Amino acid sequence: MWILAVLLALAAAAPAPRPRARDLGVPFDGTPGTWNAITDVPGVAVGHETIVSGEGKLVVGKGPVRTGVTAIFPRGRDTDRPAPAAWFSLNGNGEMTGTAWIDESGLLDGPVLLTNTHSVGTVRDAAIAWRAKHGPPDAEGYYWSLPVVGETWDGELNDINGFHVKPDNVFRAIESAKTGPVTEGNVGGGTGSICFEFKGGIGTSSRKLPAKRGGFTVGALVQCNCGRRPQLSIAGIPVGRLIPEQPAYGEEADETGSILIVIGTDAPLLPHQLKRVARRAAMGLARLGSVSGNGSGDLFVVFSTTDPSWDAAKRRFTTSYLSNDDLDPVFEATVQATEEAIVNALVAAETMTGIDGKTVIALPHDRLRKALEKFGKLAP
Amino acid sequence: MWILAVLLALAAAAPAPRPRARDLGVPFDGTPGTWNAITDVPGVAVGHETIVSGEGKLVVGKGPVRTGVTAIFPRGRDTDRPAPAAWFSLNGNGEMTGTAWIDESGLLDGPVLLTNTHSVGTVRDAAIAWRAKHGPPDAEGYYWSLPVVGETWDGELNDINGFHVKPDNVFRAIESAKTGPVTEGNVGGGTGSICFEFKGGIGTSSRKLPAKRGGFTVGALVQCNCGRRPQLSIAGIPVGRLIPEQPAYGEEADETGSILIVIGTDAPLLPHQLKRVARRAAMGLARLGSVSGNGSGDLFVVFSTTDPSWDAAKRRFTTSYLSNDDLDPVFEATVQATEEAIVNALVAAETMTGIDGKTVIALPHDRLRKALEKFGKLAP
Amino acid sequence: MWILAVLLALAAAAPAPRPRARDLGVPFDGTPGTWNAITDVPGVAVGHETIVSGEGKLVVGKGPVRTGVTAIFPRGRDTDRPAPAAWFSLNGNGEMTGTAWIDESGLLDGPVLLTNTHSVGTVRDAAIAWRAKHGPPDAEGYYWSLPVVGETWDGELNDINGFHVKPDNVFRAIESAKTGPVTEGNVGGGTGSICFEFKGGIGTSSRKLPAKRGGFTVGALVQCNCGRRPQLSIAGIPVGRLIPEQPAYGEEADETGSILIVIGTDAPLLPHQLKRVARRAAMGLARLGSVSGNGSGDLFVVFSTTDPSWDAAKRRFTTSYLSNDDLDPVFEATVQATEEAIVNALVAAETMTGIDGKTVIALPHDRLRKALEKFGKLAP
Amino acid sequence: MWILAVLLALAAAAPAPRPRARDLGVPFDGTPGTWNAITDVPGVAVGHETIVSGEGKLVVGKGPVRTGVTAIFPRGRDTDRPAPAAWFSLNGNGEMTGTAWIDESGLLDGPVLLTNTHSVGTVRDAAIAWRAKHGPPDAEGYYWSLPVVGETWDGELNDINGFHVKPDNVFRAIESAKTGPVTEGNVGGGTGSICFEFKGGIGTSSRKLPAKRGGFTVGALVQCNCGRRPQLSIAGIPVGRLIPEQPAYGEEADETGSILIVIGTDAPLLPHQLKRVARRAAMGLARLGSVSGNGSGDLFVVFSTTDPSWDAAKRRFTTSYLSNDDLDPVFEATVQATEEAIVNALVAAETMTGIDGKTVIALPHDRLRKALEKFGKLAP
Repeated sequence: MWILAVLLALAAAAPAPRPRARDLGVPFDGTPGTWNAITDVPGVAVGHETIVSGEGKLVVGKGPVRTGVTAIFPRGRDTDRPAPAAWFSLNGNGEMTGTAWIDESGLLDGPVLLTNTHSVGTVRDAAIAWRAKHGPPDAEGYYWSLPVVGETWDGELNDINGFHVKPDNVFRAIESAKTGPVTEGNVGGGTGSICFEFKGGIGTSSRKLPAKRGGFTVGALVQCNCGRRPQLSIAGIPVGRLIPEQPAYGEEADETGSILIVIGTDAPLLPHQLKRVARRAAMGLARLGSVSGNGSGDLFVVFSTTDPSWDAAKRRFTTSYLSNDDLDPVFEATVQATEEAIVNALVAAETMTGIDGKTVIALPHDRLRKALEKFGKLAP
Repeated sequence: MWILAVLLALAAAAPAPRPRARDLGVPFDGTPGTWNAITDVPGVAVGHETIVSGEGKLVVGKGPVRTGVTAIFPRGRDTDRPAPAAWFSLNGNGEMTGTAWIDESGLLDGPVLLTNTHSVGTVRDAAIAWRAKHGPPDAEGYYWSLPVVGETWDGELNDINGFHVKPDNVFRAIESAKTGPVTEGNVGGGTGSICFEFKGGIGTSSRKLPAKRGGFTVGALVQCNCGRRPQLSIAGIPVGRLIPEQPAYGEEADETGSILIVIGTDAPLLPHQLKRVARRAAMGLARLGSVSGNGSGDLFVVFSTTDPSWDAAKRRFTTSYLSNDDLDPVFEATVQATEEAIVNALVAAETMTGIDGKTVIALPHDRLRKALEKFGKLAP
Repeated sequence: MWILAVLLALAAAAPAPRPRARDLGVPFDGTPGTWNAITDVPGVAVGHETIVSGEGKLVVGKGPVRTGVTAIFPRGRDTDRPAPAAWFSLNGNGEMTGTAWIDESGLLDGPVLLTNTHSVGTVRDAAIAWRAKHGPPDAEGYYWSLPVVGETWDGELNDINGFHVKPDNVFRAIESAKTGPVTEGNVGGGTGSICFEFKGGIGTSSRKLPAKRGGFTVGALVQCNCGRRPQLSIAGIPVGRLIPEQPAYGEEADETGSILIVIGTDAPLLPHQLKRVARRAAMGLARLGSVSGNGSGDLFVVFSTTDPSWDAAKRRFTTSYLSNDDLDPVFEATVQATEEAIVNALVAAETMTGIDGKTVIALPHDRLRKALEKFGKLAP
Repeated sequence: MWILAVLLALAAAAPAPRPRARDLGVPFDGTPGTWNAITDVPGVAVGHETIVSGEGKLVVGKGPVRTGVTAIFPRGRDTDRPAPAAWFSLNGNGEMTGTAWIDESGLLDGPVLLTNTHSVGTVRDAAIAWRAKHGPPDAEGYYWSLPVVGETWDGELNDINGFHVKPDNVFRAIESAKTGPVTEGNVGGGTGSICFEFKGGIGTSSRKLPAKRGGFTVGALVQCNCGRRPQLSIAGIPVGRLIPEQPAYGEEADETGSILIVIGTDAPLLPHQLKRVARRAAMGLARLGSVSGNGSGDLFVVFSTTDPSWDAAKRRFTTSYLSNDDLDPVFEATVQATEEAIVNALVAAETMTGIDGKTVIALPHDRLRKALEKFGKLAP
């Protein structure tokens, strides 16, 4: 009896989990995996380090701070085997380090790390430092010397010139990486994000293909910090125009922000095939109404968890991979998972007040439902 | 009085002009130019040569023939000054000749030519031959030696292995190029096209930006031969699923076909800026529900009609161009014009019967209107 | 006895075989394969169709004709299995069709075909026609619909606007493809080539890696039509300046021409690794003193003859490939074979007189030897 | 009189300036500018911060330290106007941040910074911090938020995992940037470099084109850390094989290291033309015998100091640029200046002992002269 009381008390104390886009009745195509997250791809682990402190007027170097770091490992933290990978720049007004080596080697060594624009350097060098401290050199003998770190600008809410991300924050993001459900919204690298002029942040989704289409899982994780309010379209409905209140930016401003999209899959694909997948992330983003404005750093990275085997005697890798003719389901899943991950970021993020008291509102769930309902698009 | 009678008789004799997507109440954002066509960009001229003959069983070399050639000139036919240009391959399962030189030079010499997959060679060499016959060598002294010719596969309806496009057809497409309204649907290179498993073909549209956003015109012309029926989304409505009848392909087939997108603008842009514009064509295509399947050759070419001046004494070109910060309206117009051009192609195309009696139905206009109406999307 | 007499008579009648660069004492690094040709890569077959007719004044459409077609098959003519492939444009003032699909698929379907600039179209469509006539559709069902055809400009010696390459010439180039020694110089697509202002044409070379460096063979075949005389450096010696006589072009002219480089290897490499190899062809070309002038179309294509296996039940390809860490010997062999193939083209080509009586001299062998000797570079 | 004595004393105290490659009789083509340095391009400023401390056994975090930072400003430090720019990855086993934005915008905002592999992050964020401290936001309002930082690996001589480059070092490199002669060898980012297994480092060179070829200046600055000894060729002579003593690496090792090449010019070029120039740096590197091994991060960045004018009323930039037909002299100068800058790096660097007492010898000048003399290549 007292156990029940405790449980009830805990339930009351804990915030109700935020619903996700599907819970609100947003219609999507395709079937998600267990967690509807990039972690549905077996082995993928995600960690967040969220840094929030201070309120009120901006004092550079003091805060307020609204930022963080997100780490995505293709194969968990317990291996240093690189994963086949590729990337694509839809609009390169952003930074993603390590891409020259992805192009050249077809490999992702170590995790993908996401943070704010002015902390890319700290995160990058800290990733090397973490690896140098933890065990022997990697396969190339160079301790992840070319880490992959992407960024979006959070200087609207965060003291970005205060450089508040420290190596310890990076270590914690890395060490907290785990499989299973992924926290979304105002967390990790997306803590201070603004998405279609609503509060944005981290969102994720996945698709599980039916067995006869290969049975693979494709997962997307986004750090959504892009878009203007009037552009926002959800499920084909002009949601942004239907909820014009409290836009984050002034009327005349062009698109700013950025979106990072990370796609993972267990489909066995070669690097040049993954590059094809990367371009499909752009098509998922386009479904939200984005035109990828000049100010937006829209950089996408894709990896496969397929694991080529190494024959040391013959000095050969051996791998399996799909026929180009069998890629359409993977392409479709990528578009769908990207689309849903962005809506999930919008739905999960909560209203935030940052530097100089500036407030960015969350997408109001009831208004979203009403907009969908008005056009007969609310899912049962 | 007799004049009226003649006019009435003519009106009765002539087929009513096909309505365009806007006429049917499909809602689009943005404001089109005079003709809602790529020819709204001053100087742009378009010519079609349509080759239709024969019926019944396929006899390779004899027909039936359902193909053609479309020519798009950036500056009309009366000048050989190249136009700043760029291209993008969203999915390179197709041919576009001349692209290495576009990348290298930043220029389009001569017209863009569109035809069927197996006639690219004939069209290419014929373009050189036409130029060699008509006046002095071009600026480089080489008579358009690297023509730009794109293709889509029309072998579902056309005797494609019969190679029915001849040099004379190419000459006629070139010589018929003119400014003003552009014929859409089953014409030119799009004669035998299939688009989202309805009859496809040529479509076009334009956007005229307001003066305070630069006042430029952006035009799109597509040869739409891509897409599976269930993917088709128009104005956010799943039109393809609402009209499942008589799909052009079998149930299990993957995406095939291709789409060529030609974007022209009078916005003064440098070649690397035009490359940015080219990627936005992908976002317009994505709005239709496409995921750019493996089998689809989705190749886009973009030109600006801005005309750098040459100072022969100083041996310098001088040109004006937009700040990167002012590109968003051009990006948005590109996405919108591409989207509408594809719907225009679907609306303009008419049911066609080709080789072996195969029939591909046109998108039924009334069903399209009903679908939009059902979801409250029919424009007044 | 009479047999000897016949043999002697034959020997007298047959022209003495042209020496190759090594025979003249040009020093090269590395060890060539049996034929010192791209055909040392097992399975690679090469065919030439050489078209020479007429003399004297140019009459467009009549001649003189100095042109042709060269066909290189990665796996011979008896299979339609595509080969992993990649390409690179060092300077895109040229045409190579089919490259969008090489990039996208990582595959070369059918042969690589080389010809003159104004015959690319004829050769391309004829390749499709040949395949459509010979057996069932290929793996993709499309009969090599996106053939790879490169070109160099031979209009200095050839009636290039006469379009003298016909489909039958293409068929003969294809049908003559064979393994074994490769004819060099004024043959095939290189018939009318000019290389560093000497007569150029087709050249080939190969490298056989020692077993402990993998044991692979790398072959190069070039159609050399590029370069200015003063640039020409052979084995580090400024041969071009030492033999200034009878340059093919006027004093003030910029670089023109082009060079096509085809690299084949049996090293098991993935497409993105082959793209790395393709860039090394540029480094081989650079050793000759070239700076890849604006007028030069310097396009390179690379294939591997490794043969992924297809498991129809699992719908997977399986392939082996080298570690990135083991690529240096392949890179080095590519640079060396490219360098030697170009010198072989120069050494094999013979003085030719073409349109309007224009004569381009061959590189004089004795002068080459003297130049090398002067600098202590003549190999024993 | 005493003044003379002081001067003599100073001259005796100061080390004799190291000769440069030309001083030793290495023959090069083309005519250098005043300083034979990238600073011959008007406005270009270079600064070095050299960090050397400790000797003996490596203690991570303590030293020995042999590293630094080099800063190259296209327009000096007194303006924040970006410069037209492009980049090229010959072999992307390296990091160069900021490249996505160079590709997208065609612009270089701020300096190019060179350092060691594990300090890229510190240097990058410090560049932002420096800019944020010094004056108003830049044109984009973002304080150089996407700095361009390249690296080479100096962990053979330097305690690279000690992360010894600090923000203050970066500030000093920036603040010491000046026009005029450039110090070469063991300085700045090249302090711990190894080049063809001799001591390497920073090298620079320039070419001044004759008036009739445009009169432009092209400068190169390299951080040379690449190459195996047996590959090294100088002026066509196999210098590396002629001086086999004390190679820096073991016999079986593959190529490691990296080379960064920065090209600057006052030739007015558009970004897509600068991309063409960037590829020519590869051809300069090739002249040294390099094959750009797998382990080498060979990344090149090119800028023009041409200064487009902004018309705020019309919101247009206006710029002049060269015809593609006039680029050959710029290409040639790029190849030549790159080649000489690498040899200058080799000639300037001095023998260094680093971590664990490891010594890398300088290229012995007398042996170099003897090698050239032996082959009749020593310039008078």
